Amino acid sequence: MNGARAVLQTLVDAGVDTCFMNPGTSEMHFVAALDDVPAMRSTLALFEGVATGAADGYARMARRPAATLLHLGPGLGNGVANLHNARRAASPVVNIVGDHAQTHHRYDAPLESDIETVARNVSRFVRRATQPATVGIDVADTIAASQGPPGQVATLVLPADVSWSEGAAPAIAPPPRAATVPAPHTIAEITAALRSGTPCALLVGGSGCAGRALTLASAVAESTGARLLAETFPARLERGAGRPPVERLAYLAELAVSQLDGLAHLVLVGARSPVSFFAYPGKPSDLVPAGCHVHHLGDETTDVEAALDILAGELGVTEQSCRHQQHEVPGLPDGALTAQSLAVVLGALLPEGAIVSDEGNTLGLFAPGATACSPPHDWLCLAGGAIGQGLPVAVGAATACPDRPVIAFEADGSALYTLQSWWTMARSGLDVTTVVLRNGSYAVLNMELQRVGAHAGGPAAKRMLDLTDPDLDFVALAAGMGVPGEKVDTADGFAVALRRALAAPGPRVIEAIVPSLV
Amino acid sequence: MNGARAVLQTLVDAGVDTCFMNPGTSEMHFVAALDDVPAMRSTLALFEGVATGAADGYARMARRPAATLLHLGPGLGNGVANLHNARRAASPVVNIVGDHAQTHHRYDAPLESDIETVARNVSRFVRRATQPATVGIDVADTIAASQGPPGQVATLVLPADVSWSEGAAPAIAPPPRAATVPAPHTIAEITAALRSGTPCALLVGGSGCAGRALTLASAVAESTGARLLAETFPARLERGAGRPPVERLAYLAELAVSQLDGLAHLVLVGARSPVSFFAYPGKPSDLVPAGCHVHHLGDETTDVEAALDILAGELGVTEQSCRHQQHEVPGLPDGALTAQSLAVVLGALLPEGAIVSDEGNTLGLFAPGATACSPPHDWLCLAGGAIGQGLPVAVGAATACPDRPVIAFEADGSALYTLQSWWTMARSGLDVTTVVLRNGSYAVLNMELQRVGAHAGGPAAKRMLDLTDPDLDFVALAAGMGVPGEKVDTADGFAVALRRALAAPGPRVIEAIVPSLV
Repeated sequence: MNGARAVLQTLVDAGVDTCFMNPGTSEMHFVAALDDVPAMRSTLALFEGVATGAADGYARMARRPAATLLHLGPGLGNGVANLHNARRAASPVVNIVGDHAQTHHRYDAPLESDIETVARNVSRFVRRATQPATVGIDVADTIAASQGPPGQVATLVLPADVSWSEGAAPAIAPPPRAATVPAPHTIAEITAALRSGTPCALLVGGSGCAGRALTLASAVAESTGARLLAETFPARLERGAGRPPVERLAYLAELAVSQLDGLAHLVLVGARSPVSFFAYPGKPSDLVPAGCHVHHLGDETTDVEAALDILAGELGVTEQSCRHQQHEVPGLPDGALTAQSLAVVLGALLPEGAIVSDEGNTLGLFAPGATACSPPHDWLCLAGGAIGQGLPVAVGAATACPDRPVIAFEADGSALYTLQSWWTMARSGLDVTTVVLRNGSYAVLNMELQRVGAHAGGPAAKRMLDLTDPDLDFVALAAGMGVPGEKVDTADGFAVALRRALAAPGPRVIEAIVPSLV
Repeated sequence: MNGARAVLQTLVDAGVDTCFMNPGTSEMHFVAALDDVPAMRSTLALFEGVATGAADGYARMARRPAATLLHLGPGLGNGVANLHNARRAASPVVNIVGDHAQTHHRYDAPLESDIETVARNVSRFVRRATQPATVGIDVADTIAASQGPPGQVATLVLPADVSWSEGAAPAIAPPPRAATVPAPHTIAEITAALRSGTPCALLVGGSGCAGRALTLASAVAESTGARLLAETFPARLERGAGRPPVERLAYLAELAVSQLDGLAHLVLVGARSPVSFFAYPGKPSDLVPAGCHVHHLGDETTDVEAALDILAGELGVTEQSCRHQQHEVPGLPDGALTAQSLAVVLGALLPEGAIVSDEGNTLGLFAPGATACSPPHDWLCLAGGAIGQGLPVAVGAATACPDRPVIAFEADGSALYTLQSWWTMARSGLDVTTVVLRNGSYAVLNMELQRVGAHAGGPAAKRMLDLTDPDLDFVALAAGMGVPGEKVDTADGFAVALRRALAAPGPRVIEAIVPSLV
């Protein structure tokens, strides 16, 4: 068989049976081989950032990697922003970048560029396939590398001649490396801290934000009187009724500082030590209060559930001590649509098992609070801070979980980076409701303009943060991509539209016109 | 003054008075300083690829750099594909990438990444500003580097604290390096070749495709009996009635080989030696016929006009020998809209001084031929082969030349990468008519699927090259971005729409429904 077919067969044999792609000429043998390996489910994206963000969303929900297929350095470049988010989410992604045939490099043809430089920005593992005889092994190693731990973007550069040449064979991916568990002295130190009678908090992140790990973290916190916090932007937080309530650290450093104020011990459970998103003149980047001891129960390479099991055993804590969020559905508001009333409607109507891809930015501020007591659901955040993630992640989540409703909660400015996602949703019939939060501005930057200490900004500055003149029409944009949509500007109108969208199969867009908070 | 203001002042003092931007928090002081340096004209893009492609288009027309302003590694990533095209076009671009404050790096905040790795893909010159006292010099050096020769993407990484700190001062950009001229023995060798009586051709590229250089190249060719060819995708080709007729090398290697067949001497005039765009199994990448001697009159670092002056002097040739294309306007066709009839309408209606940003791909095949005798105009090609260039380059060209009509001749698949360009056209009132050539497929890939020797492709493969299911509606997409549009599917309908669009100020979109050629 040729190299391309061996690549595909190695992928599906390892369970990597989903590929989000935007191919070009150098990937035509890969594309041609799709019909020979029907177990591979391929999804076309009209822009690479959709493909890479979808692979991230898929990994967050399926807990295993999808593949991407990208075209040379420029195609990888277009995908880098969402690969950055995937890297920060510790999502496993098998990132396949087609390249010129190896004999072609020395001619420096127009599309020639140094692919590896770009790949290194997002991938600690970068491999270049060189011959069909070994390409199966290259793919197998890439899959294993992607799974870590920690999960990562592993990049395989695949020259066209390796794809088209015969003499290849599939290979079996080696098992992922074992996750670590904390040393006994770490457990002892954390146990002592939690029993010290001083103010303590557990800060969960990564795999600590879901499943039994989260249950155990809640039980430990509840039993010891510690507070349970989550990192600011978890890749996936399981929450809602019946699950442990968790308070997320605020994006605004000022607020996060007050959340952490007075702590004597902060125990990191799959999370990093909290730092401010950006630096501000004269303000510290490190958010840990002076005198607070930071303890590392586990990081991205740790089996966080096992670590919590050991800690709980040492403390004599069982899962039964876990807190459970009550189910409580707010009444539907009416009147003007505001960030608050919109969040209440979302909380009232959020269906059980929903997946929320949250890139609501400033207008999304109230949504986590308003949905805390909704039926159990998953909340996917902007892990790496590179906007344009929300819609692609929704594509990937819906592909991984075709039976669950997905809601993309999307700020207008961010939506515009990867709008092509809507077309892929329509083609694949993905059940994604996009709520575009339209305030006609990069509102977060209006706020940041002041926070960084820049003077308020004159008309030239303000125009760079303004998304009116002309107004954007997201219903028209959705229609252009083959997705039905409607506009709402009242709370009851939003409720009607959201009910309708959730009841209908396939994608829908609701353009919610909401005044800015800032 | 603070660093940001010194950056802006240094730019405008050097004539870099246009900045295409998509800023974030780390660039807020730069944005705030716009009101203090009113000579800087700033243009907001809703996606970084629009900003970088616009800077390329601006440089091609203005013959001087614009600046970009991008946000950290992910923002640069989003801009890389069009920076790749700018690099291949040898366009000078002052690429400013904001970064975290220097004190913030060690905290590895969510948006932290290795910006330089990405920058190296497109920039030989990468500088990191470190303090306000020297940031003016950093900017001045970046401007000088961008101007080459050759023109290039020069990247300055600008930490937020350098922007916000006081103690900065503007600096004066050093003059660009002098361009080279060929050595006497090169002139002698080329003179001998052109006088040898064997089949010769001049292949113009880069700055050889415009102005007096092109006139001289035509005169030399005409006087010596050599053929005059141009590279496949010139960054800017001046053509039309009254200008020298030039035959461009074909994209398809098979056709280019037949164009070059039988040549004994090929003289490169600002062009590279011709190679195939991609490699194909069993076919050579080098398109120069066996036995043909390749001579280098000049490359991207050469003063091509001076080199041609010397050569013409040696040959005793004057500008008067230059050929001039006759003005000849075809009659308007009617009937079905096809790639051919669409090209004829374009040829009939192309206004004098038009700038055509050509990303028509397969459906654009007949446009150069049909416009060869139209009034004089400029033709901007996909220099680096990374699709998604056409609309942003049109933004930049229209910004540089506000009094000239711009036509973006745009394939449907390519348009979808950087559709956000339309919003910037609307905001800036740019007189750009976009003709979207809609055939509902990545037609070039359908062709390449067969050319690379991949079997014809089954349904799974073909679905990855198909842009229907759902159909895209470009008139709706344009409306969503604030640009009026209409759909046409007949030749006379297209003529009416094109006339209307050219007569109206500001941007318009014509969705031309045209059957695929392949």
